Amino acid sequence: MTMKQETADPIPSWNDGKAKQSIDAFVQRVTTAGGKDFVPLAERIAVFDNDGCLWPENPMPFQLAFVIDELKRRVPTEPKLAADPMVQAALAGDLVKLSAGEHYDGLMRVLALTHAGMTTEEFRATVEAWLASAKHPQYGKPYDQITYQPMQELLRYLRVSGFKTFIVSGGGADFMRVWVERVYGIPPEQVVGSTARTTFELRDSGPVLVKTLDHLFVDDEIGKPVGIHQFIGRRPIACFGNSDGDQAMLQYTTINNPRPSFGLIVHHTDGKREYAYDAKPKSSGKLVDALKEAPQRGWTVVSMKDDWKSIFPFDKC
Amino acid sequence: MTMKQETADPIPSWNDGKAKQSIDAFVQRVTTAGGKDFVPLAERIAVFDNDGCLWPENPMPFQLAFVIDELKRRVPTEPKLAADPMVQAALAGDLVKLSAGEHYDGLMRVLALTHAGMTTEEFRATVEAWLASAKHPQYGKPYDQITYQPMQELLRYLRVSGFKTFIVSGGGADFMRVWVERVYGIPPEQVVGSTARTTFELRDSGPVLVKTLDHLFVDDEIGKPVGIHQFIGRRPIACFGNSDGDQAMLQYTTINNPRPSFGLIVHHTDGKREYAYDAKPKSSGKLVDALKEAPQRGWTVVSMKDDWKSIFPFDKC
Repeated sequence: MTMKQETADPIPSWNDGKAKQSIDAFVQRVTTAGGKDFVPLAERIAVFDNDGCLWPENPMPFQLAFVIDELKRRVPTEPKLAADPMVQAALAGDLVKLSAGEHYDGLMRVLALTHAGMTTEEFRATVEAWLASAKHPQYGKPYDQITYQPMQELLRYLRVSGFKTFIVSGGGADFMRVWVERVYGIPPEQVVGSTARTTFELRDSGPVLVKTLDHLFVDDEIGKPVGIHQFIGRRPIACFGNSDGDQAMLQYTTINNPRPSFGLIVHHTDGKREYAYDAKPKSSGKLVDALKEAPQRGWTVVSMKDDWKSIFPFDKC
Repeated sequence: MTMKQETADPIPSWNDGKAKQSIDAFVQRVTTAGGKDFVPLAERIAVFDNDGCLWPENPMPFQLAFVIDELKRRVPTEPKLAADPMVQAALAGDLVKLSAGEHYDGLMRVLALTHAGMTTEEFRATVEAWLASAKHPQYGKPYDQITYQPMQELLRYLRVSGFKTFIVSGGGADFMRVWVERVYGIPPEQVVGSTARTTFELRDSGPVLVKTLDHLFVDDEIGKPVGIHQFIGRRPIACFGNSDGDQAMLQYTTINNPRPSFGLIVHHTDGKREYAYDAKPKSSGKLVDALKEAPQRGWTVVSMKDDWKSIFPFDKC
């Protein structure tokens, strides 16, 4: 007698459709022992962009909200900070002034003020305090509760299928590593992000690493495959993104990969439940070239409006 | 009735003694559920130096042997290379000339010639071909067979005890990642080494990463804790080294760590079976300051002569 076993849907927040089917088909293909496309466990590397792919990037990238909140918090007791023209631009929400110049001088200035000059432990404590108090203006919840439920399910589905899941994001590695384990089940050592070098000091209180902006590495666009090689050291077989900033890592993952591979783009099409944008985002996340390239490369394009039953864990299905 | 269970010794190549006992005691301490020093799985991070800790660094670091063999191989068909004074110095074994100058210009020159200007895949193929043909002058075996048996057992022991084992070495990450998985059971993504940035190109043949020496990061001395933070993003609880180049990461691991921690130094005391050196090594691996600091910090010092039954897998016990 054989018993037919009902298995629970591992990604229940995905509507049935081409996107969901393509995910399932790929996972089956690479995990079926004895199949011609079987991929050994060690090579099941999946990389995920963060902003706009695992959580929103509106009305601004969450790390930028941290920068502004942090400046607001410090300005009352730090007159020199209050007098800084770029700090004033940031507090006024003047992103044009902040982003002016070839080297984004304003943005680099406020990043330096909020991300350098302190120890890694001090920075971690600041990020944790911010997460414990700040709320997203649209959803009214702490930022780390605003993640995409379908992508959370996908992360878990890939992990139970033997994948190692990595974040590969333009966000700061030190910023993300504070909360990724708790929020996504991804350990800090599986985060590839923008980084700069710290300096080591042995103080009376013990060893510390002091944050600087030296040797800044921006893990975006063509920096993403570069970061993947430098931090992971092997080619992924699955790549998940949502913008032209992810195009190079989608190419690196899927074009002429000797292993079977999978690329997916989350398209922000749901102006009601989330935000609708591609060519002209109000925040980051421009999506034009990667969307154009998708059919040719066989990348799955997910419509958040049509493919996702719910967007956030707190949504009603 | 209780049955006394005999468990096999997980590190049989270690002689009974203080070093072996200290390893065992630490592993028991952090893995005993309910114990006050229990460390959750996710935080069981162990870092290992490579040269002189997992394999020898005599008569020269193995990666330098690769450089010289690679120049030898190419010189007959590349007249420009043959005419380069620093190539000539390398082929003559003139390490003094190579290492002269504040920025090790000669060494950087031969590194650039052998580690940059090719794709990461081309470099990988070159390293694999070298490993398949080159033999160590003393032991007459391929370099990747000359690893320390007691350390291999220790790597496995820590892994079955729930540790994630990382290499943190001054050697090139791209060089080590070719063979670490096969040789040590350590995946490429758990290798922290010296790195430089690659550049991404989408060629007709597909995407490639071209090696450069730009933004060189030397993962040695105070670079080691910096590399650990940048690549792993959390503090290790166990650290294994053999030279003053490992002193900073030993400090970072063990001083005022909120978790229980363990530091170990492999002291090369066996001139008969391996090499005997500390203050005046013939190759790399100077060990003076870290050895002096060891008692104060409670670091275990291993005498290869006394603590290791066998040195290599091919030794007779």
